[in-house]
Amino acid sequence: MAKSEKWIYYFSEGNTKMREILGGKGADLAEMTRIGVPVPPGFTITTKACAFFSANKKWPKKLEGQLKANIARLEKDMNKKLGDAINPLLVSVRSGAAVSMPGMMDTVLNLGMNDETVLGQVRKTGNERFAWDAYRRFLQMFGNVVMGVEHKYFEEALENAKHTKGVKYDTELDAKDLQRIVAVYKDIIRKHAGKEFPQDAKEQLKLSINAVFGSWNNQRAITYRELNHIKGLLGTAVNIQAMVFGNMGDDSGTGVCFSRNPSNGENAFYGEWLFNAQGEDVVAGIRTPLPMSELKKKMPKQYAELNAIRLKLEKHFKDMQDMEFTIQQGKLYMLQTRRGKRTAHAAVRIAVDMVKEKLIDEKTAILRVEPSQLDQLLHKTLDTVAKKKARLLITGLPASPGAAVGTVVFNAEKAVELGEKGESVILVRTETSPEDIKGMNYAKGILTARGGMTSHAAVVARGMGKCCVAGAGEVVVNEHEKKFCVKDAEVREGDWITLDGSTGEVFVGKIPTVEPALSGDFAVLMKLADKYRRLGVRTNADTPRDSEVAVKFGAEGIGLCRTEHMFFEGDRIKAVREMILADDLEGRKKALAKLLPMQRSDFIGIFTVMKHRPVIIRTLDPPLHEFLPKEEKDVEELAHETGMSVERIRQKTEELHEFNPMLGHRGCRLGIIFPEITEMQARAIFEAAAEVKKKGIPVKPEVMIPLVGIVKELELQKEIVEKVAAEVMKEKKVKIDYMIGTMIEVPRAAITADEIAKTAEFFSFGTNDLTQMGLGLSRDDAGKFLPAYVKLGIYNKDPFQAIDQEGAGQLMKICVEKGRRVNKKLKIGICGEHGGEPSSVEFCHRIGLDYVSCSPYRVPIARLAAAQAAVKEK
Amino acid sequence: MAKSEKWIYYFSEGNTKMREILGGKGADLAEMTRIGVPVPPGFTITTKACAFFSANKKWPKKLEGQLKANIARLEKDMNKKLGDAINPLLVSVRSGAAVSMPGMMDTVLNLGMNDETVLGQVRKTGNERFAWDAYRRFLQMFGNVVMGVEHKYFEEALENAKHTKGVKYDTELDAKDLQRIVAVYKDIIRKHAGKEFPQDAKEQLKLSINAVFGSWNNQRAITYRELNHIKGLLGTAVNIQAMVFGNMGDDSGTGVCFSRNPSNGENAFYGEWLFNAQGEDVVAGIRTPLPMSELKKKMPKQYAELNAIRLKLEKHFKDMQDMEFTIQQGKLYMLQTRRGKRTAHAAVRIAVDMVKEKLIDEKTAILRVEPSQLDQLLHKTLDTVAKKKARLLITGLPASPGAAVGTVVFNAEKAVELGEKGESVILVRTETSPEDIKGMNYAKGILTARGGMTSHAAVVARGMGKCCVAGAGEVVVNEHEKKFCVKDAEVREGDWITLDGSTGEVFVGKIPTVEPALSGDFAVLMKLADKYRRLGVRTNADTPRDSEVAVKFGAEGIGLCRTEHMFFEGDRIKAVREMILADDLEGRKKALAKLLPMQRSDFIGIFTVMKHRPVIIRTLDPPLHEFLPKEEKDVEELAHETGMSVERIRQKTEELHEFNPMLGHRGCRLGIIFPEITEMQARAIFEAAAEVKKKGIPVKPEVMIPLVGIVKELELQKEIVEKVAAEVMKEKKVKIDYMIGTMIEVPRAAITADEIAKTAEFFSFGTNDLTQMGLGLSRDDAGKFLPAYVKLGIYNKDPFQAIDQEGAGQLMKICVEKGRRVNKKLKIGICGEHGGEPSSVEFCHRIGLDYVSCSPYRVPIARLAAAQAAVKEK
Repeated sequence: MAKSEKWIYYFSEGNTKMREILGGKGADLAEMTRIGVPVPPGFTITTKACAFFSANKKWPKKLEGQLKANIARLEKDMNKKLGDAINPLLVSVRSGAAVSMPGMMDTVLNLGMNDETVLGQVRKTGNERFAWDAYRRFLQMFGNVVMGVEHKYFEEALENAKHTKGVKYDTELDAKDLQRIVAVYKDIIRKHAGKEFPQDAKEQLKLSINAVFGSWNNQRAITYRELNHIKGLLGTAVNIQAMVFGNMGDDSGTGVCFSRNPSNGENAFYGEWLFNAQGEDVVAGIRTPLPMSELKKKMPKQYAELNAIRLKLEKHFKDMQDMEFTIQQGKLYMLQTRRGKRTAHAAVRIAVDMVKEKLIDEKTAILRVEPSQLDQLLHKTLDTVAKKKARLLITGLPASPGAAVGTVVFNAEKAVELGEKGESVILVRTETSPEDIKGMNYAKGILTARGGMTSHAAVVARGMGKCCVAGAGEVVVNEHEKKFCVKDAEVREGDWITLDGSTGEVFVGKIPTVEPALSGDFAVLMKLADKYRRLGVRTNADTPRDSEVAVKFGAEGIGLCRTEHMFFEGDRIKAVREMILADDLEGRKKALAKLLPMQRSDFIGIFTVMKHRPVIIRTLDPPLHEFLPKEEKDVEELAHETGMSVERIRQKTEELHEFNPMLGHRGCRLGIIFPEITEMQARAIFEAAAEVKKKGIPVKPEVMIPLVGIVKELELQKEIVEKVAAEVMKEKKVKIDYMIGTMIEVPRAAITADEIAKTAEFFSFGTNDLTQMGLGLSRDDAGKFLPAYVKLGIYNKDPFQAIDQEGAGQLMKICVEKGRRVNKKLKIGICGEHGGEPSSVEFCHRIGLDYVSCSPYRVPIARLAAAQAAVKEK
Repeated sequence: MAKSEKWIYYFSEGNTKMREILGGKGADLAEMTRIGVPVPPGFTITTKACAFFSANKKWPKKLEGQLKANIARLEKDMNKKLGDAINPLLVSVRSGAAVSMPGMMDTVLNLGMNDETVLGQVRKTGNERFAWDAYRRFLQMFGNVVMGVEHKYFEEALENAKHTKGVKYDTELDAKDLQRIVAVYKDIIRKHAGKEFPQDAKEQLKLSINAVFGSWNNQRAITYRELNHIKGLLGTAVNIQAMVFGNMGDDSGTGVCFSRNPSNGENAFYGEWLFNAQGEDVVAGIRTPLPMSELKKKMPKQYAELNAIRLKLEKHFKDMQDMEFTIQQGKLYMLQTRRGKRTAHAAVRIAVDMVKEKLIDEKTAILRVEPSQLDQLLHKTLDTVAKKKARLLITGLPASPGAAVGTVVFNAEKAVELGEKGESVILVRTETSPEDIKGMNYAKGILTARGGMTSHAAVVARGMGKCCVAGAGEVVVNEHEKKFCVKDAEVREGDWITLDGSTGEVFVGKIPTVEPALSGDFAVLMKLADKYRRLGVRTNADTPRDSEVAVKFGAEGIGLCRTEHMFFEGDRIKAVREMILADDLEGRKKALAKLLPMQRSDFIGIFTVMKHRPVIIRTLDPPLHEFLPKEEKDVEELAHETGMSVERIRQKTEELHEFNPMLGHRGCRLGIIFPEITEMQARAIFEAAAEVKKKGIPVKPEVMIPLVGIVKELELQKEIVEKVAAEVMKEKKVKIDYMIGTMIEVPRAAITADEIAKTAEFFSFGTNDLTQMGLGLSRDDAGKFLPAYVKLGIYNKDPFQAIDQEGAGQLMKICVEKGRRVNKKLKIGICGEHGGEPSSVEFCHRIGLDYVSCSPYRVPIARLAAAQAAVKEK
């Protein structure tokens, strides 16, 4: 660090761009000062000073001198002196990092109070109670924050005082009471901190600065940064500012306000304030704050000034502002302004309105809404008032957003049975398996005890756009007795529960829900997004119903249609099992012949919904053992149906068992060993396409071969598909435009993309598997260490949620470059779970993919994320 | 193809370098002609003509004309005419590809014979029987090869004739008999081929050429090429050559000979021949051939000429030659010369001798021995004579070479019990698990019913240098009844069996064995190899005994010491299980404290053997559940020992269960979640090093962190190791030179090597896992499709046996480049199974690794392969 390092900036020396070294609060205080908004004078110690202190446990050399000079300047500006018995200057010492970490670090107010200055303050203000109260508050904060004395000791003393006097509120204590409390507080500090409260104001200041520096690395702050993926910051800045008081009588007050309504986005002045109060009183909730309209009535001049400042700040920062103000004896001061937090509804409305008002341009509007927030708008939500009153049973993982209300059932059959009658049911399982899919389809929501955000239940539910709470660990399901328990609570089949899939909450009973609204501002924003995005957005959908939902959400095609999900329904699973259990080709062909018309009708349904839009259909992917029954009774039933012995079925299941099924006999390896499966699937696709095309719909099937690792696999499968396509087109006398491509999910495929692209017409990244293989992480098993890994900072984010850009992402980059080098027309997309995650969408944009594909309910998120990526690029 | 394409080369127009278009046989016939060796005249139709024919099902335009011209030239040289009734020319039509495919394709001899020329032949030779016999032979060959009539019909007719006449041998049939057979043969052809035998010699020739062309793609030839990885050839050439006859009386004969002894390599003329016989008679084995010494006695002039030719050819081709000759009425003709096949013993001796004789230089000698052949020399072998007489029970996979003789036992405990008494036992298991290791150690050999070349049994056995036959599918083990069955045969505990781990054969009873000889020529060759190789060669060894063997075989260090193998012995497994089952850190630490002295003593043993040589020790790698017992009785025993309930142990095992353990909680992920394990292991390593160093041995421990995927993992583990190293060095007051590095086995590690190399001092490729993850192939499960994959040509070779150079290999290349770019001093090696496989060793050389590491018994193979790679490069 240079010797001439400037460690402190007086507010008038900074500006809003200096957030990195002044922190957000400091930079905005400086900016307000710069543009003439009334801010109590003060200065900011830089984040670099904090970094130096953290590393060296002492101040940088020049800091002391610079602090002295800035205090002198502040004393001059305020015409008061720190620690002066006659005309004491009081200051606040506040933290403020470059990224907002609300409430995580420490603050000291009223610094400068001591046994002498309190008397000066009494003389100066003529308000004895105010002065002693300020001293009392300072002692409490300083004692706690700087001297490490627990809050409870101070609270107890205060309570005692009120008790003794027989009053309820602090405000009922008079100056004498407070003076006594000050003495008690000093004793408390002496006793619990083991040393005397420092009377010297300069000493108080230095200790407070150190405390704020130190609070950067308190456990709470570290955890907050971890949870919010805040990295790479130097430390916190420290803002030292002249105190102003909203509690100096009825011409004083304090409040927080927003330049627009943060809840619904309406362009109206919104806020709360209190007469004769300190900022903390507003937050504490002891007195009920008043709306802004009351300020307008009571203090019209100050209101007008504040409203003008509100408009000025919004215009200046071009965004909705969250402001703090204090009126001290009629004079208005702004203590803070920052970008206002807002709900998804508000975010969309404010962005759209501000474009209309020409305050921001379209590109800025696109950047103003967090894509992941949109989720809130796409699903049913619980009525917020009713929710507050409901009984929370447990909180699991928010696995698939939305709200669901229904009676509890414990197996898929029951879900189907009641669901078919039109009843609303919630399927509760320890964990789900592919055999539950039909039941999940009929349920309004799913609750599981085990499994993470990428468990079977979670993935399938998101695909269906169905509310799901997964991994609610304390839920103990007793399917046999038809009940589940959470500690002492017991919920029986038929009882009503309500799920909030966006928060993971599970409630007892029914809570009213609110339907999503996709028109209006939302539609305007989506249109804007479509205008700017370069990436196409497709959907992962396996049924006509999913396809319809996705098209409504703006999907431009299907990026992944998983044929295996169709295999689980009704009679199909029987034919599938018959095929698997067959001893020879003939037996398999017989079973496949039964599946052909079923698959064909599925595809007819999907093609009819999707019309001219391209539809990628993936050939069979999962290992065959996934289709065989595990439970004794299911095996017996299968034995009964097929006439095979239970023994034989067990033996076949045993034969198919795999140590690492993820890397086993699945994907195109099935179609290579059993070409007749690929043949049947290709026939179903092309016969369906032919039929739909004859109705005048210009179908565009794209056949995708999964798990290709080496080009020869694709060549062999392509040969079969092409042969069948030619046969069907000849038989049906229809020409069908189609493409054949491959998933890129095996690392080898990515690094030999230049070979594979010679044979493939398109690539689609299966980033789930690419992550599993590329990182050597089994999604199902990583729960034992991945959370710790994210906590230790080994991975920034769970690589199954956001693409690991340096790892899996690098494989993708290599793949895109190599693939395009040999095949300029190669279409490249992504159909892994990451396709709907904003940072991953941005990455896909940056590496030049043609489209992303995600579950229907994530399509709008992907559209917005894609637009943001395009806007950021320019 | 150019219009002026030369489709045919007269022998005098070609040379030995034209193998690609003339085939091996054609090129060498041309070469012999060129250097003046007496060869019957002829010409070669190129492999390009065959390729054209295969693709177009017709001859290239100019071929017919060129054939005519060359036949004319041949007729002129021989002063005979094809199909001429007075002076007929007979020719042979033989296949011959660029790479030898012995017996795989077709041959036609005596072409030109018909009803007229047979009479001309009678007149010309005055030997009626010879002429009709030649016709008879031609009909049989032509009928079979060209006209597709099955052999058996001709054989039956011949047998009938002998039966009718009451004789045993063909030679007892006279001219009249043969004339009758000729008539019968023509009938057979008419009947079974559906058409007449063509009398026109030109027609015969064209049809024969097509038949030879066609034989390139017969199933037998295709399979042979697949099995021998022969790729990229155009087709077979066709050699048309004037016939010479060794069966024209007592001044005629025929034989095959080698320029040196192909069995032991001795520099002596070696061969077999027959008086008055055709070449096929030598091979057929009806008459017993005579040694060369007999030729010397019977035909001294011809012997002398042949011997001179032998010496000339060996000098010319600078390699041991395998030759065919015919003496026709006193005149010697050479029909073929080619590189002679030889045993490993012979290969080594011939290479070393030829250097001494200054026939070849050292580099050539290095290239003359196939590295994988050396295996034969490093292990006990079965006495070849006794082996031929023994009863073969079954053939499994040759999983680990060598020979083993012992009595059968069915579990590890019994193997230990008898092994400790000094008895020779063979451990027979359905498949082995880590719990069998101690028993395997005591057994002379291992036989398993399940599992491939990379199964647990195979890998461990190779590591131990112990004979193993794996995956003998028909073996059904009944451990309970202490027997195993192979179809009807039953082998009981205590019965003797013999294994040949180099061939996979299992014999009933005892067969004498022959000890390997590692001195003499072998030692000379190894010294040569060391002189030329650039790659270092280390070994994978987990025990002092393995280390000793490896050093004897020339290992320059340990490339991989797997600490987990040490965990299975005796009391250790108890402490390991105690650690795994512990509920908290304290419990784990208690158990680890018990393991510390055991691990330390292991390392002391290894360091003491390895002395100054570097020793890489890998920290714990396998998932913890591998250490827990699976069998009911073992669980009960563990419960008894630990005082834990069976229930609790089951529950813990259940908790540790993984869906895809290969990608689960293993490798450095263990050390990161349980840092105390790494700490204990580091302490054991450094305390051992300190103790050994104090004895004056300059130990060089290198600590290797497994399964790193992201640099932060390595950083965290390195921190622990460095801390412990510093502590131990301080405690023991010894300075220890050590390095810390990582395995590269996760694809992500390979592609982010530039990050990882900043922290790692060395890399070691774990190519087993890198192949599994990079190719998405589970080694344990690939058996269901990988054999078919190799057969379909999807992968050239099993990627677990030879590095998949385009896939896993490309990841290695990227890794080496990126790693070295940021860390010039980075040492890079390989410690996967591939480290001892010749083509993989060559690949490692080419991409610039510093060393390979392989199991002790593969060290000499790696040394030679490394030398070959270096020599080839120059």
